[in-house]
Amino acid sequence: MLKVEHIGIAVQSLQVSIPLFEKLLNTSCYKQETVASEYVETAFFRQGETKIELLEATGGESAIARFLEKKGEGIHHIAFEVNDIREEMARLTAEGFTLLQAEPKLGADNKLVCFLHPKGTNGVLVELCQEIEK
Amino acid sequence: MLKVEHIGIAVQSLQVSIPLFEKLLNTSCYKQETVASEYVETAFFRQGETKIELLEATGGESAIARFLEKKGEGIHHIAFEVNDIREEMARLTAEGFTLLQAEPKLGADNKLVCFLHPKGTNGVLVELCQEIEK
Repeated sequence: MLKVEHIGIAVQSLQVSIPLFEKLLNTSCYKQETVASEYVETAFFRQGETKIELLEATGGESAIARFLEKKGEGIHHIAFEVNDIREEMARLTAEGFTLLQAEPKLGADNKLVCFLHPKGTNGVLVELCQEIEK
Repeated sequence: MLKVEHIGIAVQSLQVSIPLFEKLLNTSCYKQETVASEYVETAFFRQGETKIELLEATGGESAIARFLEKKGEGIHHIAFEVNDIREEMARLTAEGFTLLQAEPKLGADNKLVCFLHPKGTNGVLVELCQEIEK
């Protein structure tokens, strides 16, 4: 793993939380993006080499909607950048971790992503992500 | 704020979680440190410019013990590095955020730290930290 690519934070409303995080982080939101397949709307902020990603659910089918219902607003996941997501998925499987996808899927911000089951990582939802070459 | 300095993760047992995170992150734990004033034992891993800090409670008075009892293991806080912690505390107070300390306190890893009340930050426990010059 190369670095913390982003930290995902579940929020009820981007309209409320974007100005809040702009004040907190003292930087502007530089991008918003809808990930229709995941039923989420995202907003991004830069902090050094890491991004802060706010996530609002756009439908009850969304994992973010379920998280908000169960736990309320807060940190949802940590995403680590990797060079080769398939290689990293194989390494982690061999180490005994459980992947939530057998194949990488398309995430926000032009990435291939795969999540690990948080039961195997001390309750931390870990995402692997690899930039898609254009 | 300059960067994500570290991500704090509450765990029941460093003895169990250090080898787990060494496998997960594919890197060795490079430091363990006791913060007696906070009743915690910490362990650090590097990921790019950010550290992952595991936190085990060493007493019932610890905020980590209360967190584990209430929420179980998982991500506890995000720490942002700042140049001048007092200046940043003043800026955030003026923006309407609530600080948990009126004065910076001594944290792990040679830092002055101050936490923000998570009720004002969408449930995210935010730490400011400034390296103490030696």
